Amino acid sequence: MTLQNMSRAGGESRRREGLSVGLLGLGTVGTEVFRLLSDEDLMVRRAGVPIRVARIAVAHPDRVRTVAVPRTLLTTDVLQVVESPDVDIVVEVMGGDEPARGALLRAIALGKPVVTANKRVMANEGPDLLARAHAGGTALHFEGSVGGGIPLIKPIQESLAAGRIHAITAILNGTTNFILTRMARDGWSFDEALSAARQRGFAESDPADDIEGHDAAAKLAILSMVAFDATLTARDVYREGIARITARDFAYARELGFTIKLLAIARDRDDEVEARVHPALIQQDHPLAMVPDEYNAVLVEGRELGPVVFSGRGAGGPPTAVAVVGDVIDIARNIRSGVPERTAVLAPRRVRPIDQTLLPFYLNLQVTDRPGVFARVAGVFGDAQVSIASIVQKSRGEVADVVMVTHDAPGYSVQQVLERLRGLEAVKAVNNVIRVEAKI
Amino acid sequence: MTLQNMSRAGGESRRREGLSVGLLGLGTVGTEVFRLLSDEDLMVRRAGVPIRVARIAVAHPDRVRTVAVPRTLLTTDVLQVVESPDVDIVVEVMGGDEPARGALLRAIALGKPVVTANKRVMANEGPDLLARAHAGGTALHFEGSVGGGIPLIKPIQESLAAGRIHAITAILNGTTNFILTRMARDGWSFDEALSAARQRGFAESDPADDIEGHDAAAKLAILSMVAFDATLTARDVYREGIARITARDFAYARELGFTIKLLAIARDRDDEVEARVHPALIQQDHPLAMVPDEYNAVLVEGRELGPVVFSGRGAGGPPTAVAVVGDVIDIARNIRSGVPERTAVLAPRRVRPIDQTLLPFYLNLQVTDRPGVFARVAGVFGDAQVSIASIVQKSRGEVADVVMVTHDAPGYSVQQVLERLRGLEAVKAVNNVIRVEAKI
Repeated sequence: MTLQNMSRAGGESRRREGLSVGLLGLGTVGTEVFRLLSDEDLMVRRAGVPIRVARIAVAHPDRVRTVAVPRTLLTTDVLQVVESPDVDIVVEVMGGDEPARGALLRAIALGKPVVTANKRVMANEGPDLLARAHAGGTALHFEGSVGGGIPLIKPIQESLAAGRIHAITAILNGTTNFILTRMARDGWSFDEALSAARQRGFAESDPADDIEGHDAAAKLAILSMVAFDATLTARDVYREGIARITARDFAYARELGFTIKLLAIARDRDDEVEARVHPALIQQDHPLAMVPDEYNAVLVEGRELGPVVFSGRGAGGPPTAVAVVGDVIDIARNIRSGVPERTAVLAPRRVRPIDQTLLPFYLNLQVTDRPGVFARVAGVFGDAQVSIASIVQKSRGEVADVVMVTHDAPGYSVQQVLERLRGLEAVKAVNNVIRVEAKI
Repeated sequence: MTLQNMSRAGGESRRREGLSVGLLGLGTVGTEVFRLLSDEDLMVRRAGVPIRVARIAVAHPDRVRTVAVPRTLLTTDVLQVVESPDVDIVVEVMGGDEPARGALLRAIALGKPVVTANKRVMANEGPDLLARAHAGGTALHFEGSVGGGIPLIKPIQESLAAGRIHAITAILNGTTNFILTRMARDGWSFDEALSAARQRGFAESDPADDIEGHDAAAKLAILSMVAFDATLTARDVYREGIARITARDFAYARELGFTIKLLAIARDRDDEVEARVHPALIQQDHPLAMVPDEYNAVLVEGRELGPVVFSGRGAGGPPTAVAVVGDVIDIARNIRSGVPERTAVLAPRRVRPIDQTLLPFYLNLQVTDRPGVFARVAGVFGDAQVSIASIVQKSRGEVADVVMVTHDAPGYSVQQVLERLRGLEAVKAVNNVIRVEAKI
């Protein structure tokens, strides 16, 4: 029945020589999507057919809009839009869980091609939705769910298809990158930088979504699902936030040749994948070290590929709308030419636990400033087979900061080191422990 | 006949459940293309069918190869490969004019889909070839012709299709960017940096191709053809090389907050387009200012799009092969599903002459170091209605360097200024004149 519905929808569309969209959501992205789809010149030139927005689901039909939308198109009933026989393509730009999730499921069940910019639903249930779309032979496109207007999903899936991507290293959250950029550049504390970000309207409604890395983890889940053809979701991504990074960490990092970024990292390790979001020291000449302010950047590496970086502002209504409409154009071209959709088939992959992931670590300790202390500290590292690559020691009166960067070490060994250090009388505090991203 | 041939070829392919490629060229790119296409797992997963390399045209069939190629596949007869009934898709990675150009024309005339990485032919005759492919309903893909493994053509044509791109600002030549990076970083002269680039094997066989901007101009022609759907070729691109840039220009540029890059710039100005390759001062925080060494980067701006940057190493056999094979995969998917190809329809555009292009200019003059000289120099600018934004003056004994950056001025006014300055007794030399790229 699904396939019948789909071919019926396609047949009708081709006869009409035009396609109609059911738009779910008319916020900043939805408004811009409406405006672009209504530009008949642009659509005919790019999609080959005019595209009509036939129905729009909104929460408040009587709200004053910045774009002229006929009141008759509006309804509060999301499923009515999805199910309308007049709707060929469903475009979901509401965001959030429900009713978006239910609408996407219903559209796929009806065999209607779907475009969504819904990071949350794609990060949590992308593999399930893609499997359903694949089984039903319909399209599910989601370029707008990651990175705003930066093309990522499609270049990874198509242009780099032969590159055997084995690593993604990315800055995927504008707010935290703004905060860390200002801490690095101006010596601000985390709280000062956070309030500057808020003043600029960067922070999400729930700041924890940015600061604790949930936003970046969701985006990384989507990107690694696509890059590795794996059934990964946000639940598979290890996650750590940036609130504990201090101005002093930045000062020591700089002294050692690094800066600090909130990185989203996915690695294909043959038998397993790594997927993690955490603050990381990166060398000052790393391609991501200079990504400023609210910019996002995604570094892709493949076996046959040099490093490729995609960057830009990762958010905003108009750029995200360009990504969404790009997907609509793809679908329109495919419907017109009767192409079956080519949804990726995903396979399950084992995720490497963070404590078994090999990385260098930055450790910032406060010790009593007395002879022999450093030898005892170093002994703890030696016992756990964690070797030290560089050290900075700074006396601060009674106490001293000892800052070390280790060579690659498994997380569990560093945990062991930390437990032993905390047991030493000479160690007053472990100020911070931050992972280090090796140079590419 | 063309269409018949095409549908016959497509029909055969679908029946065979596999596609066969005629490969033209087996250099560094061709060898890697052969290797990737022969990876049946990869091809079945990405293209949906195995792909067989059926015939290969090479100049020297008996040369020892780094990859095991059955001798029976090799021939020196390019057209024989193109015309072979056993070849569904023609992949041209020979480079250069002939016989590549003739082979592409013949393949298109036969209605066979074509993938090429040929910068030269696409830059000089891209519009003609695309028109022929469009008329014949066949495919012409050329992702590998620009930027090695960095996805550019397809993201611009598809992902950003709704973004109404109005500007491309790019670093498209690795050799010159390496040279300029070293001049900026290490204070080297142009000749020192050039010989370092040669030692690293960067320079093209004909160094003028890099240094004089021919390579960048060819790539810019291809990108602006795609971004503006315009029948632009390399002949439409204004071009200036970097050989006259001195260490002193870099020192003054730095003092004024700039660095110097060889930029490839295309702008859609409604009634006209600008397309130009020349050295340019760019501000130190411009997204392209930090692109190091042999890296390429392409900044795309559109009406609905924030700045988006694509970057990576712009050359190399394996990355270029990934781009070529990505195109083969697209074509294979389309053939399998019987999709007619969607070749862009290009329109002619008027190109704005460089002397009518409004830009700020950097001028570096040598003047006699006497009172009143500066007033006379400034008077010349005032007479030509060219206003000055910033000035640095440095005494060097008898003479002084006067370095100025103007506000936006048309090229012809600056020409006028230069002629008048050269007539002044106090002006000993015009050391250099370099355009300035305004901040985005």
